[in-house]
Amino acid sequence: MRLTAIAGGTGAAKLLRGLAAAVPRSSLTVIGNTGDDAEIWGLHVSPDLDTVMYALAGRLDAARGWGLAGETFRCLEAMGDLGAETWFNLGDRDLATHLYRTRALREGRPLSAVTAELCRRLSVAARILPMSDEPVRTRVRTPDGWLSFQEYFVREKAQVQVLDVEYAGAPAARPAPGVLEAIRAAELVVVCPSNPVTSVGPVLAVPGIAEALAAARARVVAVSPIVGGAAVSGPAGELMRARGLTVSAVGVAAAYAPWLATLVMDRSDAPHAAELARRGVKAVLADILMTDRDREIALARVVLDSRGPVD
Amino acid sequence: MRLTAIAGGTGAAKLLRGLAAAVPRSSLTVIGNTGDDAEIWGLHVSPDLDTVMYALAGRLDAARGWGLAGETFRCLEAMGDLGAETWFNLGDRDLATHLYRTRALREGRPLSAVTAELCRRLSVAARILPMSDEPVRTRVRTPDGWLSFQEYFVREKAQVQVLDVEYAGAPAARPAPGVLEAIRAAELVVVCPSNPVTSVGPVLAVPGIAEALAAARARVVAVSPIVGGAAVSGPAGELMRARGLTVSAVGVAAAYAPWLATLVMDRSDAPHAAELARRGVKAVLADILMTDRDREIALARVVLDSRGPVD
Repeated sequence: MRLTAIAGGTGAAKLLRGLAAAVPRSSLTVIGNTGDDAEIWGLHVSPDLDTVMYALAGRLDAARGWGLAGETFRCLEAMGDLGAETWFNLGDRDLATHLYRTRALREGRPLSAVTAELCRRLSVAARILPMSDEPVRTRVRTPDGWLSFQEYFVREKAQVQVLDVEYAGAPAARPAPGVLEAIRAAELVVVCPSNPVTSVGPVLAVPGIAEALAAARARVVAVSPIVGGAAVSGPAGELMRARGLTVSAVGVAAAYAPWLATLVMDRSDAPHAAELARRGVKAVLADILMTDRDREIALARVVLDSRGPVD
Repeated sequence: MRLTAIAGGTGAAKLLRGLAAAVPRSSLTVIGNTGDDAEIWGLHVSPDLDTVMYALAGRLDAARGWGLAGETFRCLEAMGDLGAETWFNLGDRDLATHLYRTRALREGRPLSAVTAELCRRLSVAARILPMSDEPVRTRVRTPDGWLSFQEYFVREKAQVQVLDVEYAGAPAARPAPGVLEAIRAAELVVVCPSNPVTSVGPVLAVPGIAEALAAARARVVAVSPIVGGAAVSGPAGELMRARGLTVSAVGVAAAYAPWLATLVMDRSDAPHAAELARRGVKAVLADILMTDRDREIALARVVLDSRGPVD
């Protein structure tokens, strides 16, 4: 089965590991969020692409959900000694990825080509595509002004009020080579359980991608990142509220309304199923908390079996 | 005593440690070679400036003579996994220096300002000045073509034949702010026991520096990097031959002829003293092998006492 997934970081990585265990890896294409890319110490860092890449390489730090397993942070310590900012945790081995990518981008290679190179070097058989080769940057407006996503999420630990969210650069961005084709050719398009506003939102903001999803609607299934009235992890709730979305499976369906056929959501959210049906979205109930590898694979199987029109 | 030293890397670092123990550190100015600066993984690396800086910060790896004590190389390993070149050994903590410098240079700050910042952060009280803020690059011609100095020295381990040496960019370079003043104001100018061709040579190639040394001639003392007919360390012998210099204390004096008043050389080189006197250079005999800290200080004291006209 040809499978295309739209992915943020940590939550997506778990489902992608499950999917990669359930289908041949070479049949899996991941469209990754680059809205939270950042320049740290002069290096181009693509946190979501790397989380997905490390997860599919079997190298992700499982406890943290980001970075490499067994990582050390000696360069970070030394940067602190030099008085540089140290709120973004770049590990010593992880640095190699950013150094490699930054040099290649400076030499003029597109992010999609560099990502493919990194995947080949790390023996990732799945295809990982950045949503765009052009810069799109998620910015969050707070009472004290605009912050980049990483300033908001990592430096401020998402502990500031969010008034608005924008995707700077999105109107001028084009889908990276292969993105629209991957959506069109997929037998199933999976929207991972990622933040609808700052993980999936930037992907949707790239002109052409939402339209391609709408054309594929019957084949699009999303996994809810919300259980009950709260996000499984991260600041999705706060960000959904800032965007005027209800923090619930219904809010997720509303965010994805024009092109979502099926929503996999937690069994405890069964009461929302009727409202989803009214909105033309088929609800599939499952255990969506992926607390171990078996549950990742079990949820992946539910997703793979979930495709279908509203009953 | 106001002291100005002209320095390469490893050999210079030892004498500078000795000098810093013998005079107030704030009275010491070091003019460092940047001819062997290199771009590695997209980072601006200044090996000689860093060796001197780490030595004066008390952080140099004593066994290797370069890099930081207690260093790890995990990023380097990961770069190898990604297929990047790994012949230049950048340590994890050392990387912070190069990241910091590279970003500052990209922001438009001159190398001299960045070097001063790094020294302040590392609590180096001596002043370290790059010879120039403009790029000067030592290149070595071999039977297979031109190599950068680091390609020759580190990648090829100095095991290829040298046909010629050039200092690309030198004619257009200007001495960094403070360099000429430091030579003029010094009560003693010390040319460290560094490679005359590829450590001191690039400094002399910057227009104005040799002239300033000539004007200070009576106050200039050099320490020979040659004992008998061979270099204490490194490829100085091969490079001197390529430049038509005899590999001996006499050859060192010839390289520095227009502005050298005094040469500190090994006791075993006493037979050369007469020839040096004939050339107008006062010879001072000493134990010049700095095999431990006591010998570094002892040699520094000889240097400090050596100033004076030919008898």
